Amino acid sequence: MMNAKLKYLFCPESVAVVGASNGFDKLGYHVMKSLVEGGYGGRIFPVNPKGGQIWGRQSYQALSAIPEAVDLAAITVPGPFVPEIVHQCGRKMVKGAVLITAGFREIEDPKGAALQEEVRKIARLYELPIVGPNTFGFVNRTFGVNASFTPEFSRLEKGGVALISQSGGFCHLCGFMAMEQRMGVSKLMSLGNHVNVGFPEMLRHLVEEDDDTRVIALYIEGLDHPRDLLDTAKSLKGKKPIIAYKAGRNERGDSASRFHTGVMAGDYQIWKGALRQAGILEVSSPEEFIDTAKVLDKCPPIKGPRIAVLSGQAGPGLIAADAVENAGLQFARFSARTQETINRLLSPMAMRTNPVDMGPAWYSPEDMLDILKAVVEDEGTDGVIFLNVFASANVHMAKAMAERMKGAAPFTKPVVVVFSAPRGIWDAEIVEIDGKKGISIVPTPDRAGVVMGNLWKENLLPG
Amino acid sequence: MMNAKLKYLFCPESVAVVGASNGFDKLGYHVMKSLVEGGYGGRIFPVNPKGGQIWGRQSYQALSAIPEAVDLAAITVPGPFVPEIVHQCGRKMVKGAVLITAGFREIEDPKGAALQEEVRKIARLYELPIVGPNTFGFVNRTFGVNASFTPEFSRLEKGGVALISQSGGFCHLCGFMAMEQRMGVSKLMSLGNHVNVGFPEMLRHLVEEDDDTRVIALYIEGLDHPRDLLDTAKSLKGKKPIIAYKAGRNERGDSASRFHTGVMAGDYQIWKGALRQAGILEVSSPEEFIDTAKVLDKCPPIKGPRIAVLSGQAGPGLIAADAVENAGLQFARFSARTQETINRLLSPMAMRTNPVDMGPAWYSPEDMLDILKAVVEDEGTDGVIFLNVFASANVHMAKAMAERMKGAAPFTKPVVVVFSAPRGIWDAEIVEIDGKKGISIVPTPDRAGVVMGNLWKENLLPG
Repeated sequence: MMNAKLKYLFCPESVAVVGASNGFDKLGYHVMKSLVEGGYGGRIFPVNPKGGQIWGRQSYQALSAIPEAVDLAAITVPGPFVPEIVHQCGRKMVKGAVLITAGFREIEDPKGAALQEEVRKIARLYELPIVGPNTFGFVNRTFGVNASFTPEFSRLEKGGVALISQSGGFCHLCGFMAMEQRMGVSKLMSLGNHVNVGFPEMLRHLVEEDDDTRVIALYIEGLDHPRDLLDTAKSLKGKKPIIAYKAGRNERGDSASRFHTGVMAGDYQIWKGALRQAGILEVSSPEEFIDTAKVLDKCPPIKGPRIAVLSGQAGPGLIAADAVENAGLQFARFSARTQETINRLLSPMAMRTNPVDMGPAWYSPEDMLDILKAVVEDEGTDGVIFLNVFASANVHMAKAMAERMKGAAPFTKPVVVVFSAPRGIWDAEIVEIDGKKGISIVPTPDRAGVVMGNLWKENLLPG
Repeated sequence: MMNAKLKYLFCPESVAVVGASNGFDKLGYHVMKSLVEGGYGGRIFPVNPKGGQIWGRQSYQALSAIPEAVDLAAITVPGPFVPEIVHQCGRKMVKGAVLITAGFREIEDPKGAALQEEVRKIARLYELPIVGPNTFGFVNRTFGVNASFTPEFSRLEKGGVALISQSGGFCHLCGFMAMEQRMGVSKLMSLGNHVNVGFPEMLRHLVEEDDDTRVIALYIEGLDHPRDLLDTAKSLKGKKPIIAYKAGRNERGDSASRFHTGVMAGDYQIWKGALRQAGILEVSSPEEFIDTAKVLDKCPPIKGPRIAVLSGQAGPGLIAADAVENAGLQFARFSARTQETINRLLSPMAMRTNPVDMGPAWYSPEDMLDILKAVVEDEGTDGVIFLNVFASANVHMAKAMAERMKGAAPFTKPVVVVFSAPRGIWDAEIVEIDGKKGISIVPTPDRAGVVMGNLWKENLLPG
């Protein structure tokens, strides 16, 4: 039931914005902007008791006045009006709602919690799934709807990562990082202080109903019933990779979390073990969260811990090698055939065993790519980190790689790439290469090592 | 003696490029490009036995043919020619050289080490300081000379950080990160496998002779005589902050390092303790390296561990709070007066104690700035982390901050700021705010916590 309705909620043929406005200081202004400017293909119905034109569209004074069916209601009216609006949604047979309004369970005043409980009961009456309250909304990039107060999320690249968060601020932080790093997104959403759509409902929906989502990335602060999330994850284990970033790890964070979403963050050490048991890969920073989700989405699965590091410059290779060892990975030993290829293409001036210093091949992108290909194809290698730092003399490297890739078969092992250059130099080529043929680009050599370690850790999770 | 000559080397009135070329595949082409396009104000003398015009300038067939004095010789000719060129430098009374050519001690063939020893002896004969060999060169941004094969380094912002590295690749990686993050650079250089200009000589020069350098950032792989670096740092302790990133921490990295610069990386645990004893702050990733150097350069010194976290959004505030506690810092307790200001400006819907959730002030940049000011001025606060994540509704935040800052007095405590937004939205304001009035901007809340911890750790170093 929930799953069926969530499909309408996230892929609506029509959206009503309750509280739609032409005034910049109203959230209903920004939600309208997101829908209109985000190129949403369905019908948009602004709802405002004042009537008139809103964002160039005829508005309705009430939900009931809309002459057509409404799949999704985006609600931005002040808290006291919300219960009546939810009743109206039910009577109108709206399929789902996103409740952007704040001032519910997260506030100190007990009236907030009471209001949230009232909304929960009304929603149950109509079997209405509600995302929120106290959420910025959601964006479904693969379907093409931005039902949030942040129009800029329509710039996110489409892809396989569903980012489900307990914090809207975290979604914005990571959403902007995702844009910068070309992480492909299916859904981006904040649960807020969820009425009836929480992590368990979302996990089930994303694994069972959402073919566009290949990787699930969770940001968790604290939960009343963490077992529900953990048991659901366990029951779905092995179907799609799930990663989680758990915040509120210390005492002060814990009390901040209570203010934010109304629940304590809980003992971090217990969380750590429980996530692992549930088959969820834990990460420790926003950077690691984005890198790991992106690479899990774009690279083929890793089948072992034997990594090759190929670097156009020795220093960055050394940094990646440190990170590879810290992540508990091993260094691949090349076959005689691979080593022959490398020795043929590189002079003895460079380190030709793993980690390979490809410095002498600087002027020859072809040689670099031949080495990369030989190493990926080597049976003793499970994953490859390929690093190149721009200098005036190797400016053609990225272009050669992009061109060679066009006709090539996809890599069957993860190839994590760092192409470091001043802005404007390799930009177009990076866009062309990233996320193609089993390749994923991350910003620095240490992050390449960390993310490769996470691919392998994900593979090792119990289940 | 060394110090006096290094001043000419790094601030030359004239540069000869030995091996200057019009051919893209020659390093002498790229060095000429760096000097010419980098706006170097001194005289440039291309030297090439073939003669003719090089990069639009009359070339000379030998150093001796140059009719004027030469302060710096940039040498890019193949290894076998180098000893004779160094002799010529000596006879011409060149003040210093940067030896870009590779193929010395770092190669497997013992002839490389022999050649380097020969060069060292010739240099000693003439008391000629030589940066390199096996270096990309150096850039002195504050003086305005780019004597490297990477013309793009002329885009680096001018500032107080001297980045001295054993790896050219690392310099490029961090140099490009520095551009992206607006870290101000005085000097950027790779020592290569140093003949006679190593870390000790550079430390002494930067501390005693270089007024433009306020922070010294070292990238270390391995050293024959680590004591020389450590003893020099100890003797200069307390004069300018020194940070270090030590690579080659594991076994594989160690053997890679030997190939790179000709020396083993050595036992990391011993290094760790020794750096600390020498008053050097150790960091663990390129990101931390750049953030820490940048913030040490731009913020006033921190005087205690009591940090306030002010965040426009609760989630990012929670992440910063986690990082603050992990870094061993404490949470500032606000005075009654500060708390009154906060309570007046924020509704009880938000957490008003530290970490402060400024969510309700979203539409009022003025309120946010009044809170920031009150908290910085609070005697119980030693440093402030100020976070804001863009959303459509708070778009004016950054502009208001930039405008208010114009007439304001500088902050007397470190204010580490995160302004997260899609590219193109707050770009101009970020440039206007970053590095001004005691403020330094870093990319994410966790990195803000880490760098604040490093400010305090630097303060606590023995000495």
